[in-house]
Amino acid sequence: MTKGFTIWFTGLSGAGKTTVSHLVAKELQARGYEVEVLDGDVVRENLSKGLGFSKADRDTNIRRIGFVCELLTRHNVVAIAAAISPYRAIRDENRARVGGRFVEIYAKCPIDVLAERDVKGLYKKALRGEVKNFTGIDDPYEPPLNPEVIIESDKETPEQSAAKVIAKLERLGFVARPI
Amino acid sequence: MTKGFTIWFTGLSGAGKTTVSHLVAKELQARGYEVEVLDGDVVRENLSKGLGFSKADRDTNIRRIGFVCELLTRHNVVAIAAAISPYRAIRDENRARVGGRFVEIYAKCPIDVLAERDVKGLYKKALRGEVKNFTGIDDPYEPPLNPEVIIESDKETPEQSAAKVIAKLERLGFVARPI
Repeated sequence: MTKGFTIWFTGLSGAGKTTVSHLVAKELQARGYEVEVLDGDVVRENLSKGLGFSKADRDTNIRRIGFVCELLTRHNVVAIAAAISPYRAIRDENRARVGGRFVEIYAKCPIDVLAERDVKGLYKKALRGEVKNFTGIDDPYEPPLNPEVIIESDKETPEQSAAKVIAKLERLGFVARPI
Repeated sequence: MTKGFTIWFTGLSGAGKTTVSHLVAKELQARGYEVEVLDGDVVRENLSKGLGFSKADRDTNIRRIGFVCELLTRHNVVAIAAAISPYRAIRDENRARVGGRFVEIYAKCPIDVLAERDVKGLYKKALRGEVKNFTGIDDPYEPPLNPEVIIESDKETPEQSAAKVIAKLERLGFVARPI
């Protein structure tokens, strides 16, 4: 039986997926787990160059991340994906693919907060129409129906969000409670 | 320090890469290693659908396999790639990428033997021009200059080839000799 599992962060751009995923990774590494963070941008560079942001291309990208998560999970690694992954069906496909060893984290944040925050300046561009197919503006986002954890960067610190994720992993038995 | 490393099989279609890679995988699994075989066809399906057989597309495909090998190698897994991987520079790029924990196996076989054997019927099609960009017929293959092992399916059985690979892995210190 593998010790590996997949933690899948989904949510709009700027909602805290990458930040919290790295905090979770750090904590799990400190507890002796093998951890790999598959960040959406890194994966686009290494596995999906040439793909765009149509539904078909997004689906292909997310399936590729799922394929790699499956490989890592099978070999005792904790794979942490942090990608917008807007479509529910493809996330669920990946959940099935890794044989249920899959924990979905919904990084939930109201879009007006994200547009106000706008760390990368992308929301402004999208609202001005300079960036097309921007999730939440002119491209759909389907929130998870039953995510294992909801984190909310407008209400909690990244550390609090990470602690919620770790606590859930302990309750689910994916991670041992420290003695 | 990771226990992982990458075994990279290169060579023409039908030269024995897949067959020998699975024998090597089986032996290493029996010795307790975590092993993943990344077969060229499986990877094309899961990571490279849509890519063709131009030099650029082949390079992209081989780099993607290299990316996954790097991830697995870093996390204590033995990654075994079996892909034609015709271009020396990209194989060497992958060697560098996995930080030297890379063993190149050249599946060497004269093309007339392969065309005669022609298990999948592909050589006949390529020679008739029905398949284009076929490595060794109308597309180049650059053999490794210093492969760690050369296996020759026209002179040895798959079992003998696999034994050569395992013996080399032991000599290089990647795999412990059984007591």
